[in-house]
This record gives sequence, structure tokens and C-alpha cells, in this order.
Amino acid sequence: MIEVEVKARAQKDTADKIIGLGAVLLGTESHHDLYFNSPLRDFKDSDEALRIRIKEDGARLTYKGPKLDRKTKSRKELTVKIDDPLEMGAILSSLGFVLSAEVRKCRTKYSYDDVVIALDEVEGLGSFLELEARGEADWGLQAKKVLDLLKSLDLGESIRSSYLELLAEKLQDNAGI
Amino acid sequence: MIEVEVKARAQKDTADKIIGLGAVLLGTESHHDLYFNSPLRDFKDSDEALRIRIKEDGARLTYKGPKLDRKTKSRKELTVKIDDPLEMGAILSSLGFVLSAEVRKCRTKYSYDDVVIALDEVEGLGSFLELEARGEADWGLQAKKVLDLLKSLDLGESIRSSYLELLAEKLQDNAGI
Repeated sequence: MIEVEVKARAQKDTADKIIGLGAVLLGTESHHDLYFNSPLRDFKDSDEALRIRIKEDGARLTYKGPKLDRKTKSRKELTVKIDDPLEMGAILSSLGFVLSAEVRKCRTKYSYDDVVIALDEVEGLGSFLELEARGEADWGLQAKKVLDLLKSLDLGESIRSSYLELLAEKLQDNAGI
Repeated sequence: MIEVEVKARAQKDTADKIIGLGAVLLGTESHHDLYFNSPLRDFKDSDEALRIRIKEDGARLTYKGPKLDRKTKSRKELTVKIDDPLEMGAILSSLGFVLSAEVRKCRTKYSYDDVVIALDEVEGLGSFLELEARGEADWGLQAKKVLDLLKSLDLGESIRSSYLELLAEKLQDNAGI
């Protein structure tokens, strides 16, 4: 599965603009994400991610491969649903993986033209919009679709950094590094 | 969770002897086990195991730590239920783990005095009995309990090798190594 995804900082009127497009509200979710780093290679350098996400409907383990292009956040994504996130964390620790960060956010999801629009309130970072299309093929076309949608919502440049990277940057800024 | 486990080769009359003890038949299961090795350390040397088990009631990922004593197969065991064993295998591969073996067996389970008795028909290896007690504490007492039970079933020496190790030994024997 290839995930085609773009992200940008949201503005105060972004939710209204999404509704204005005719997008359908899918619901809201709270995410508690635990990120792990590998003992083999630093995932910051290899542009990979390993995450346990805990939300209302259960927990999942997700691996994300390196990004496939320079404009979007498209990448290979593999996910399994798990019944016990703490036990999964203990397995990863036993295998040498190290808990590197936690991210908490509230996500409001909309659907529009086969794209999932996620408006995120991220603890410590603020509001962001993520647009995501999924599929096995034609990811060039899907990338164009999400970039056009981003433009029609009057948002600025897309951000390729993950929340994990943005939080790390903020911590560095706060520490005056 | 500490798993206290002993194993021995089963004999033709072992099933009858288990019933004779007054053990309760719990049911039969088919197991398809996929074992993975770590890119960091050879699990054969470190005495660890990472396994995806697929059975009728779903799939699980299990990590087993090194054995804790010389008589039993007692060890730390961590398990999560997963909804998609193939996707889990793909995540492990992406993280550098390598599929090292597959084991298929039919297991008949009994319960007796808080011990689970498993009579296994292992593809390519034959019949074995595994006795397992679980708990957070008192594993010395539990180890005694399963060893006494093994004795009362008139079985020979306990085997500390896993099916994985026994299959590897058999392959080596067949190859005349």
C-alpha cells in the first residue's frame, strides 16, 4: 500500500473551507502515538518510522518506509491491528527498539473525492491539515489530486516533516540549540 | 509473564495416560508458525525467538527471551494478537528481520492441575508432549509441578530444544553434516 500524503499548517478558517468544498465529516479521533527507533539504523537518517498508535477503536503497529518523492509525504505503509499496545512496546524493547517520542493529537476527519482530509490539533505544535489518498497504483495522479486540493484550500507550502520531526525541531529551538 | 514449560517425546499410549490422570480435553488446534531471526544477533546463539503463529482463532506475534534455567524451557514470553500475519511479516522484514523457518503442527490440549498439557504432532518430527504452567511468581514451584507431572506420565528425559532447533538438527542429519 502506498500512502500519498501532504501536510500544511492549518488556518482559523480551514475547517469552514473544508465544509465549503462539500467534504463529508467522518468523525473525530484522539491519537496517542509511541515512536520507536531502530538499533540498526537511525530512522531520522533513513526516513523510516515505527509507531504504535492508540485510539478509541483500538491500537495499531505501523511501519513507514522512506518518502518516495520530494513534494509529498508518499511512502510505503504497513499496518497491523494489535490487541495490546503495552505488550507490543515490550516486544519492540526486547528486540532492541527504543521508545524515542510520544505525540498526542485530536484529529477531525473528512472525506472528499476519495481523499481523506485530517484536521489535527497536535499537543505542543498547533493545527495542521493532512490530505491522504491511498492505493496500489497511479500514485503520481493521486499526488497531483492531493496537491491541487491543498491549493484550493488556500493553504501555504506543504510541509514534509512529520509531527515527530516538528516536535524535535521545537525542542531544539526552545533549548536555543 | 514467565512461561514454565517442559517437553518430551510422546509415546503411543501417552494420550491414554493423560486421560487416565483425569485431565480435561480442551480441544485441538492447527499451528502454522513463522520464525524470524534478528539482524542484530543470531537468536540461535542468544536463545531468543520471534514467531508469528497462525491458528484457527487468529494470529499472534510472540517474543520469547532466553531460558531461565537448565531443566525446563522457562522463559519470558510476550504475545500480542494481530489481525494480519502477512502484514506483520512484511513489517518485520522491513525492520531487517529474516524469515528463518516454518513449523506446522496439530496440537491437542488438555488441562490438569493448572498445567496445560499439549500433545503435538509436528510435521516432519513426530509426536511430543509439552507441559506448561504460567504465572508472574513462584516459577520454581511451577517448574517442580510440571517436572513431576512429566514423570508421572512415564516419559523420558525432557528436551530443551525447540521444534525449530529439532527441525534444524534433522535437516543437518539428513544432509549428513
